[in-house]
Amino acid sequence: MALIVHKYGGTSVGTTERIKNVARRIAKWSRAGHQIVVVVSAMSGETNRLIGLAKELQAEPDPRELDVIASTGEQVTIGLLAMALKSIGIRARSYTGAQVRVLTDSAFTKARIVAIDEARIRADLDAGQVVVVAGFQGQDEHGNITTLGRGGSDTSAVALAAALRADECLIYTDVDGVYTTDPRIVPEAQRLRTVTFEEMLEMASLGSKVLQIRSVEFAGKYRVRLRVLSSLTDADMPLEEEADSGTLITFEEDTQMEQAAISGIAFTRDEAKITLTGVPDRPGIAYQILGPVADANVDVDMIIQNTGADGLTDFSFTVHRNEYAKAMDLLNGPLKAHIGARAVLGDTRICKVSVVGIGMRSHVGIASLMFRTLSEEGINIQMISTSEIKISCVIEDKYMELAVRALHKAFGLEQSVGA
Amino acid sequence: MALIVHKYGGTSVGTTERIKNVARRIAKWSRAGHQIVVVVSAMSGETNRLIGLAKELQAEPDPRELDVIASTGEQVTIGLLAMALKSIGIRARSYTGAQVRVLTDSAFTKARIVAIDEARIRADLDAGQVVVVAGFQGQDEHGNITTLGRGGSDTSAVALAAALRADECLIYTDVDGVYTTDPRIVPEAQRLRTVTFEEMLEMASLGSKVLQIRSVEFAGKYRVRLRVLSSLTDADMPLEEEADSGTLITFEEDTQMEQAAISGIAFTRDEAKITLTGVPDRPGIAYQILGPVADANVDVDMIIQNTGADGLTDFSFTVHRNEYAKAMDLLNGPLKAHIGARAVLGDTRICKVSVVGIGMRSHVGIASLMFRTLSEEGINIQMISTSEIKISCVIEDKYMELAVRALHKAFGLEQSVGA
Repeated sequence: MALIVHKYGGTSVGTTERIKNVARRIAKWSRAGHQIVVVVSAMSGETNRLIGLAKELQAEPDPRELDVIASTGEQVTIGLLAMALKSIGIRARSYTGAQVRVLTDSAFTKARIVAIDEARIRADLDAGQVVVVAGFQGQDEHGNITTLGRGGSDTSAVALAAALRADECLIYTDVDGVYTTDPRIVPEAQRLRTVTFEEMLEMASLGSKVLQIRSVEFAGKYRVRLRVLSSLTDADMPLEEEADSGTLITFEEDTQMEQAAISGIAFTRDEAKITLTGVPDRPGIAYQILGPVADANVDVDMIIQNTGADGLTDFSFTVHRNEYAKAMDLLNGPLKAHIGARAVLGDTRICKVSVVGIGMRSHVGIASLMFRTLSEEGINIQMISTSEIKISCVIEDKYMELAVRALHKAFGLEQSVGA
Repeated sequence: MALIVHKYGGTSVGTTERIKNVARRIAKWSRAGHQIVVVVSAMSGETNRLIGLAKELQAEPDPRELDVIASTGEQVTIGLLAMALKSIGIRARSYTGAQVRVLTDSAFTKARIVAIDEARIRADLDAGQVVVVAGFQGQDEHGNITTLGRGGSDTSAVALAAALRADECLIYTDVDGVYTTDPRIVPEAQRLRTVTFEEMLEMASLGSKVLQIRSVEFAGKYRVRLRVLSSLTDADMPLEEEADSGTLITFEEDTQMEQAAISGIAFTRDEAKITLTGVPDRPGIAYQILGPVADANVDVDMIIQNTGADGLTDFSFTVHRNEYAKAMDLLNGPLKAHIGARAVLGDTRICKVSVVGIGMRSHVGIASLMFRTLSEEGINIQMISTSEIKISCVIEDKYMELAVRALHKAFGLEQSVGA
């Protein structure tokens, strides 16, 4: 008997028919003798409907009140799923985040989980109940309703799995796992049977948005065994087969065997590049430029500064494309003169392509293979940044698909990979 | 400065435009220096939508889970109204029933309020906030979400007014007060400026469904000054005029002045009559008949038993029309032989017309005027029952409008009435 946390997103519970399907799947696990906690999102479209209502009343909805409203989406789903389970003979009880309770800080609309009181859930599990918990929500120390922000249901599931020391946390979603790259771009992309936590972090932040990055961080911190798998398979497929499907996220120390050098090719078109030319090459210049940018709440991703000749240098960084205009306005203001830059150049027609792999550390030649592959395709590299387990290149955005396909092939990812 | 509880039903908050209108009205009271607590229902149609979803999953929805789902309707409204208030510069905070908290028993879908912790609300009021509370809901001692059943928002408002010792509880609704009878039947019907609590109870239970009867009982028990008034008037009408509009529900001891003999004519078509003929006239026979009826959860209203000749009597009573078939099936079964009744006769083509008035006690001749009026119209009276402040007659249903109009005129109700 194992204690398993299931999580189903908005699409999986988007209609009452789909909720019945989810109930059948859970019943299979429960009848096999497992203790099951289920975390669910709002029915797809419901959160947007509620936010739409709010915006009709306040252009910038009050965050506390927005959470009061938005949290009802998941509250409806938990009640419906508990009913669906009961109607097929499975004992079930639903809980809101406040009822569990999931204690968070008071950062409305983007709260962070502080603690989870798992006693009530454990008592229900021991009494043979399936426990259905509303994802995405909690309660602060003053009893206010909070939400964790978009995608927070993944984090709720992982946090509950951690608090309950669950054997595994299964994230059911509309993809069947983590791939070596996006199959829409590279048809030969392969599903990874396992991926390490660290790789997953890089993949998630780079655009393979299978899981919310916060939930992966949480899983890493509390060593939660996490599996991403499809909710679109037949609910009655054999349990053993389902339990082994999708992609298991492991921890580095767990991986005994030889790793493939890299696990996947990630990419994003969400960034824009800003370059300040002719900047004085003196200590503190990076802070002078990026301090005001950070103060304006603009996140910076890659940062490149080269040693300059004649006391001047070029300073480049990338920001999210949505924040590009804000950052450019800021830098073209009095700041430009203050820094003493010659010009502020912006470019939104870029993309970032990365190779990710935990095996990279023990394999030389990854970077050179990447650069050679791009060169052979005639693609100019504008910026490079590296970490322990990834190498990212900024290139012109029209080459993105070409670069991803070429790299996928060059690193041999079309052959079966994973443990 | 007074502490006032406002209550707005589903129609009054049925769209975001109407919620803005409600906010404007509340702002007027708040800016006049009053402390305001607002109780709201779900947006009209929302509770039915939620119950519809539930029934798609469970033909008889689990009561605990149904409350989890249904309570979200009011939760959305409180958030939206708080936002609407903030957007026009009024400080406001919303609370669910659980947050207040409104402690109830555990009778899901029809819970009763046990206690209200008003400390948090009072602190907010003292800090200058308008407090918006979800009606219709509470929390039991185990932390489960409960609902008070349909119309429970009125009860929530009155209970909060009692707990806070509010100066007045204003129930805003789509009628502009309590009338001497239904204006759709008697165009000359007059709005009552005041009505006593006891009269209101009789009026409410007899079909003038302006207020939920439980809320009136609650108001009587805790001496809450209750006013029913229209939410359809101009939100910007002068506050003094609005504060004096509608109908004030008073308590008997408060009424100093001469009362009109009767306050109104109530009526209902919701009942059906059942008569057992040739029943042995022996002790215990009423219990033998009505005991099993009560055990089957059928509510009985009027009961008539006459002294019989030759040791036999006829025994009649009325039930709600929805429960007529159930009651007839029961009595036509083995029970009929056990009782020794000759026949069980049913009649659904009846109605009940009542004159109600606290002044009735000190005025003779009310009953005889009622009977004479019906007689002059050629209407046969089938059953009569009387209480301290009302006389009810069962008549054939086709005469209902005629009887109501004749009685309204005979008792002089088309002249202005009330305090």
